Amino acid sequence: MRTIFWKDGVVLIDQTKLPEKLELITCKHVVELLDAIKRLAVRGAPALEVAGAYGIVLACIEKEFTRVDEMKSHLIKTFDLIVSTRPTAVNLSIGAKRALDAALKGGSIDEIIRLALQEAEKIAREDIDRNRKIGEYGSKILEDGDTVLTYCNAGRLATVDWGTALGVVRSAVSEGKKIRVIACETRPLNQGSRLTCWELIQDGIDVTLITDSTAAHVMKQGMVDKVIVGADRIVRDSVFNKIGTYMISIVAKEHGIPFYVAAPKTTFDWKKTSKEVIIEERSAEELVYCGEKLLAPKNVNVYNPAFDSTPLDNVTAIITEHGIIEPPYDVNVPKVLRI
Amino acid sequence: MRTIFWKDGVVLIDQTKLPEKLELITCKHVVELLDAIKRLAVRGAPALEVAGAYGIVLACIEKEFTRVDEMKSHLIKTFDLIVSTRPTAVNLSIGAKRALDAALKGGSIDEIIRLALQEAEKIAREDIDRNRKIGEYGSKILEDGDTVLTYCNAGRLATVDWGTALGVVRSAVSEGKKIRVIACETRPLNQGSRLTCWELIQDGIDVTLITDSTAAHVMKQGMVDKVIVGADRIVRDSVFNKIGTYMISIVAKEHGIPFYVAAPKTTFDWKKTSKEVIIEERSAEELVYCGEKLLAPKNVNVYNPAFDSTPLDNVTAIITEHGIIEPPYDVNVPKVLRI
Repeated sequence: MRTIFWKDGVVLIDQTKLPEKLELITCKHVVELLDAIKRLAVRGAPALEVAGAYGIVLACIEKEFTRVDEMKSHLIKTFDLIVSTRPTAVNLSIGAKRALDAALKGGSIDEIIRLALQEAEKIAREDIDRNRKIGEYGSKILEDGDTVLTYCNAGRLATVDWGTALGVVRSAVSEGKKIRVIACETRPLNQGSRLTCWELIQDGIDVTLITDSTAAHVMKQGMVDKVIVGADRIVRDSVFNKIGTYMISIVAKEHGIPFYVAAPKTTFDWKKTSKEVIIEERSAEELVYCGEKLLAPKNVNVYNPAFDSTPLDNVTAIITEHGIIEPPYDVNVPKVLRI
Repeated sequence: MRTIFWKDGVVLIDQTKLPEKLELITCKHVVELLDAIKRLAVRGAPALEVAGAYGIVLACIEKEFTRVDEMKSHLIKTFDLIVSTRPTAVNLSIGAKRALDAALKGGSIDEIIRLALQEAEKIAREDIDRNRKIGEYGSKILEDGDTVLTYCNAGRLATVDWGTALGVVRSAVSEGKKIRVIACETRPLNQGSRLTCWELIQDGIDVTLITDSTAAHVMKQGMVDKVIVGADRIVRDSVFNKIGTYMISIVAKEHGIPFYVAAPKTTFDWKKTSKEVIIEERSAEELVYCGEKLLAPKNVNVYNPAFDSTPLDNVTAIITEHGIIEPPYDVNVPKVLRI
């Protein structure tokens, strides 16, 4: 099943409910979709790209328009709203922009709807195709018997299907290699425990859960052959990904373990450097509570950034749908991706 | 208030209830105390030292003895039971051994009880005294305005009073220095969020909570001047402390931030090396559940070691009640501690 798809609205797996239950929700209005994005019912850069595009489709149909210019102006306003929902992931705006640009070419209300939906569906198909390619390229780095440590969820649930970092594992497994995964729980929202473990168990792939801070210890014990993570945004000097990725990259380097990033071309924002990227800060509640349970004094100060930046110096190679990119990145990224 | 004290039994703060409520429990039988130790109602190497000693006192009074030899044989059996409760912390056995040795000198049932209790109370007083000394020595490394990152809880709640790593902070603050603390939540049992934040807020010390994996990020932002952690056991080549400490030591080194360990002499087990220390593995449930909330699929494999070992090469200095010990440790530890 796809993580996100269109059926009389945006249908998506509510990832906040996993692993307790597999629940689908249907968003009929942009505000519902944005709420789902904000509370991370749908997350992961590639999935957000499709979500952004579907957001424009929702904007087309959530109201009865009588005039084309009124409709187009609503789409443009919606685009700005979508982009501001989660500032760090560049893919959200890329998907929304593509659907918007397609829609704006329409001459009638029906044509605008058709063009927006057509583009969104194209993005969804492209995501699956490129993840398969990322998997094919990436599986070359994995040897039979390897153990891969991963962080957060860069799997099927972060994309439309197959996954990026976990797509590499899936491709290697489907080629007959025996691959084990060590999943870091990924605090504070536990995407590793909730999502990565869930989807790997669904597929019968061997997975072991550890706390984030156990990563260095398992590396020292010789239990990890490679690290593969996803990315929310890749700029000229750094990879932005879930908070903690930077820490994993440092301990991998300390133990001489290769550190790979698996991400599609759309994750690259090659005109920018890390200084220009805003890191989203999330609420204190994410650390103070776990469900109903109080984990810290209610009035404690909390610093809860959602992402960190890993210098490209710490990255062994980047696995994309156009091939594996090795350093020097300033030369090879533009060459391989043609950007 | 002391974390643990004797009043018709062993009275202790049930740390599993913090920060929700401050609840005291009284153990009248050894089995109750060992249960409290196992479920971490009382934890922290120095507090366990006193707990071990009180355990021997409980063994003296939990039954009606008629013969001295029968009583002594019960104490010896209880000692073995206490020591096996948590294999990594050496202090538990040190405290129990001291109380046992004192008790075995008694010639009558009453004398045995008196000697055991006297020794246990002496250990408790000594702990407070040595923590004050660790604080006095340690505060010299802290400058006015410093921010200290700490991991787990090496505070008042890990000791009888004052604390080791947090004792250093308390001493510096009581000397009028302005010190800020960044506390890592310390998964999976959140001693950082639950205990460190709680006790620092109680004392009006500025504390900010982060996830464990945010440590590298705050260091890169220049938000951390020094790291101070406690220790469960220090051997010739390594410091054993809460899982994750090793990770913090690596990222501190990467950012050129001094990494200090604050611990009393009893934490040193200088005849051993890290290969001879058993690392306690705890249950999968600690990662799969958080209170009632399911965080991971119920059937997932979990690797949940309670401790890791940080090579002494990563340690800038060790703060003890006998002074600050700098490298080379093979020379200076025996010299300063006379072991």
